[in-house]
Amino acid sequence: MREAELPVTFQPSGKTVYVLAGTKLIEAAGGADLALDLPCGGEGVCGKCRVVVSGKASKPTPAEIEALSAEEIEAGCRLACQSSVIGPLNVEVPPTSLPAARHKILVEAKETAPAVVDPAVRKRYVELSPPDRGDDDPDLIRLENAIGPFDVDLQLLRELPGRLRKTNFRGTAVRADGRLIDFEPGNTQSECFAVAVDLGTTTLVAALLDLGTGNELAVTSRLNPQTSFGDDVLSRILHARQEPDGLDQLGRAVAQAVNEMIGELTRQAGVGRERVYELTFSGNTTMQQLLCRVDPGPLGEVPFVPAAGRGQLVPAADLGLHVHPRARAYVLPVIGGFVGGDTVSGILATSLGEAEGPTLLVDIGTNGEIVLFDGAKLSAASTAAGPAFEGARISHGMRGSTGAIEKVVLDGRLRVNVIGNVPPVGLCGSALIDLGALLLRHGLLTPQGRLRTPDQLAEGVMPDLARRLMLHRGKPAFLVVPAEETGHGRPIVLTQGDLRELQLAAGAIRCGTQILLRRAALEPTDLENVLIGGGFGNFIRRSNAQRIGLLPPRVEHHRIRYQGNTSLAGARLTALSQQARRQAEQIARRTEHVDLSRDPDFAAAFAEAMIFPEEEA
Amino acid sequence: MREAELPVTFQPSGKTVYVLAGTKLIEAAGGADLALDLPCGGEGVCGKCRVVVSGKASKPTPAEIEALSAEEIEAGCRLACQSSVIGPLNVEVPPTSLPAARHKILVEAKETAPAVVDPAVRKRYVELSPPDRGDDDPDLIRLENAIGPFDVDLQLLRELPGRLRKTNFRGTAVRADGRLIDFEPGNTQSECFAVAVDLGTTTLVAALLDLGTGNELAVTSRLNPQTSFGDDVLSRILHARQEPDGLDQLGRAVAQAVNEMIGELTRQAGVGRERVYELTFSGNTTMQQLLCRVDPGPLGEVPFVPAAGRGQLVPAADLGLHVHPRARAYVLPVIGGFVGGDTVSGILATSLGEAEGPTLLVDIGTNGEIVLFDGAKLSAASTAAGPAFEGARISHGMRGSTGAIEKVVLDGRLRVNVIGNVPPVGLCGSALIDLGALLLRHGLLTPQGRLRTPDQLAEGVMPDLARRLMLHRGKPAFLVVPAEETGHGRPIVLTQGDLRELQLAAGAIRCGTQILLRRAALEPTDLENVLIGGGFGNFIRRSNAQRIGLLPPRVEHHRIRYQGNTSLAGARLTALSQQARRQAEQIARRTEHVDLSRDPDFAAAFAEAMIFPEEEA
Repeated sequence: MREAELPVTFQPSGKTVYVLAGTKLIEAAGGADLALDLPCGGEGVCGKCRVVVSGKASKPTPAEIEALSAEEIEAGCRLACQSSVIGPLNVEVPPTSLPAARHKILVEAKETAPAVVDPAVRKRYVELSPPDRGDDDPDLIRLENAIGPFDVDLQLLRELPGRLRKTNFRGTAVRADGRLIDFEPGNTQSECFAVAVDLGTTTLVAALLDLGTGNELAVTSRLNPQTSFGDDVLSRILHARQEPDGLDQLGRAVAQAVNEMIGELTRQAGVGRERVYELTFSGNTTMQQLLCRVDPGPLGEVPFVPAAGRGQLVPAADLGLHVHPRARAYVLPVIGGFVGGDTVSGILATSLGEAEGPTLLVDIGTNGEIVLFDGAKLSAASTAAGPAFEGARISHGMRGSTGAIEKVVLDGRLRVNVIGNVPPVGLCGSALIDLGALLLRHGLLTPQGRLRTPDQLAEGVMPDLARRLMLHRGKPAFLVVPAEETGHGRPIVLTQGDLRELQLAAGAIRCGTQILLRRAALEPTDLENVLIGGGFGNFIRRSNAQRIGLLPPRVEHHRIRYQGNTSLAGARLTALSQQARRQAEQIARRTEHVDLSRDPDFAAAFAEAMIFPEEEA
Repeated sequence: MREAELPVTFQPSGKTVYVLAGTKLIEAAGGADLALDLPCGGEGVCGKCRVVVSGKASKPTPAEIEALSAEEIEAGCRLACQSSVIGPLNVEVPPTSLPAARHKILVEAKETAPAVVDPAVRKRYVELSPPDRGDDDPDLIRLENAIGPFDVDLQLLRELPGRLRKTNFRGTAVRADGRLIDFEPGNTQSECFAVAVDLGTTTLVAALLDLGTGNELAVTSRLNPQTSFGDDVLSRILHARQEPDGLDQLGRAVAQAVNEMIGELTRQAGVGRERVYELTFSGNTTMQQLLCRVDPGPLGEVPFVPAAGRGQLVPAADLGLHVHPRARAYVLPVIGGFVGGDTVSGILATSLGEAEGPTLLVDIGTNGEIVLFDGAKLSAASTAAGPAFEGARISHGMRGSTGAIEKVVLDGRLRVNVIGNVPPVGLCGSALIDLGALLLRHGLLTPQGRLRTPDQLAEGVMPDLARRLMLHRGKPAFLVVPAEETGHGRPIVLTQGDLRELQLAAGAIRCGTQILLRRAALEPTDLENVLIGGGFGNFIRRSNAQRIGLLPPRVEHHRIRYQGNTSLAGARLTALSQQARRQAEQIARRTEHVDLSRDPDFAAAFAEAMIFPEEEA
């Protein structure tokens, strides 16, 4: 043990770190490579970072007293974002406090093969005739005569004469657009790769693509490590603005995660990471600016203005990404401050702008993005749905990972389906939708969003439902799973507050949909199709989503189509096809950005949307 | 005085440096900011770096014994490249050992105003409407709507949102080609500058240009500091190849000199150096590659292959140049290994490719470049003229700076004209041509290049000439100025060896001219014009140059036209005009590069050219 530093050992890993007295447990955990789940950004309000300490821990803070019961505190339960080290400590980290190892994240995307594989990066093996007395053409002219004109950057130009002579003028020219980015010894034509990244606020998904064949070789996903700086884009913008090093921290965090994912992908496919010549990034406007370390300040205040509109092509190395030294990163164009590259991707991947009739695209996430194609024009809006669908701000909410209840059905009695087939520890978004719809249908929840008390129930309510109405911390709640059946020995309940969050989230998207439809003078029934995008869409049940008003009513179920992860699909398309890249740029500029709050109908539509639909759609 | 280090004081500056025993005087001089003239690259053969020491100097080396007389050595005379420090020392540096402070360098150029001033760099002052609730366009789209589409690099994009808001969306957009390189507060439209550089082997010339008006604001020149690594391109290529840090040393040396010149120019014109957004460089192929630090190795061996053919546009910062942080440097395209950007400049500046009839362009320098326009096609060749015309390898040769005899005429007796009107210290190239022609005309020199002895002279030779024939170190020589009239008290003579060098230099250019003419089936009399380019051309006398065979015979004098510094003119044109830049690229690819040594007539033409013309042209 070092002088003046205190040992903190984390379980179950057994890893010990030495820290100065006063260090927050969350920082000590960071030193032990444990990134605890921190949806609230470390403000002690979400209670997600709970740990159990033995040894000398600091006195519970007011936030901890609020978030934890007296028994829990007595048993050593603490919030890692609040508690400090004051002596040697043993810290047990329950799995629920860790970002899930296995997320149920949608990585597949439908119909995303580009019409033609025409990537910006191309390789060409050449055997040039070396200079001789009768042929003293400059090196670059010699190469241009074989592959056509190109630009070259200075560093490569400096190396090229030596490299050409070392390879006896035989090798593989690598071009990105009109630019020579490498000349590799031997024939490496078959090794030409790109990585497409869905830059989600919560989740990162990356796919390794073969630029020769267009095939996807591997895919991986992980939690966006920026979540430890805050759950939603606004808290990250705040972090970037308020901390002197905040923007760099956020940029580094995501770059490191992407670097690790590239490592995984290339290992898995057995290819060298220096053979990755291009990256494409599709995310919301803030995520894209944070990746590029462009001050997101103006995105955090009215009127929420992005820095760039068009897609940006920047050196990957300047983003801290370790692939080929002259690889480039294409960051998708954005439509507006809250309608970003991921929405452009959605429009591109679903060919929304070429649909045969009026079509709605809904991406359900922390920000719900809605795009309407009215048969001629595209309009897009974002709604502050809040993080309820991602499990945040819900008492027992969690992301769609092992232990999450992902489905709730009534089959004589209430039954739940748990990801990973383990005892449940929380509720994810799709279960929340199921529960909301179920409670509305059975009269346990009023359209105004109030949970009825047992004495207010109508006759004939199924007893298994009625008996689940209870008080939780003195407030009405619905018992989803009793303590004895859960993974952590505490009951999983849905509170009145949780239902308000759900009402807010569904209502925001409903309000946006209504305004876009009204502006185009369309009714829900005019919609040929409703497309569900995002990594979450595939797991929700259409009728339940309609029951709570999340999806428009009276649209036949076969017209509601899941599109998979359209953000990843767009990133993939723009990696494989320059044509797709040009389309993305056109989409971004062609799509009207609708500021919902400025619509004259907004107040009415918002008030209306805050009430759950009276009856089944 | 520091321990273990020895003081060396240089006079007349009085500057003292402390060096370890064994340090060469040339290095100690470097420490005192004295760049001694080192045409031979420090091999002790040219004798140009002589100094006079008092104190403990090392024993004369064999090279010093060869180069200096016993009396000189006795008097403390040493070569700085040979002599080492063994004790405290006082070192007197004669002005003749220093690169001349005032070179007689041609900086003007004729007819070089571009048809249109259409520089790659443009400024535009804009007042954008700031975002408000009804207008949330991205920052860059807002700017693009005002000035048209552009690319932007990541670093500027990162700064732009803050900068736009700080200036309340008013400022000056700076674009280079299609790229935004800055957004400056206020209206800076009138401050948009470029620097055009003639990158000579011996001399650097730089001009500051106003990109708004096309006007030249200031011009400056100085010795290329690379001369301390060797006098000609081959010795510098050797240095770059053999020294581990050699290429960087050469690159740094020229970058530092250019930086200092930019400092001078901007101070002189009273403009900020950060307002210089573009630089253009015109030099021979090796000079351009050394500037860019591109391995010149292949330029040093058959078949002398350049790295790049087309012009290169690179970040000025990557060349170590300090101007605007995102300024670019355009390095002119080259035709071949020894026909570089300076020749392209010559063709561009003289509009040679659009001449009305057959025209020859001759650039007399260390490498003589010859370009023939036969009325339809351009062909170019380089000749190893050697450095005689720059005063090197000539016993009393020197560059065209203060103290140099620049003109020799016969006016009853031999008269000389000295630059700076001081007692002469040496001969520069134009005087060498005068003397060669004069000696031929008066029968003191045979066409074979042999200096006659007094007894071999024909009757009627002017007595003032005849009595100047003498022996110098046992070999025939011609006394130009007796010891008592020179600045250093030693006679200035022209030796048999010097005349051989002149014969070689003139013959090389003559041979090249003859071959180009023969290939085009032209006679000298078919030439409409003979254009003389380079910084040296303006100071030579046509008839004398024709008498020694340097310029083609039988061309009327009014057809021989001086073009001034065409290399600088080309650099200037390509800074002011994108059209000129495109023309330069076309010229470089359109001009046939003729390898003289591969011509079937070469052996015969060379042998013939080595004989001075029998009689007056």
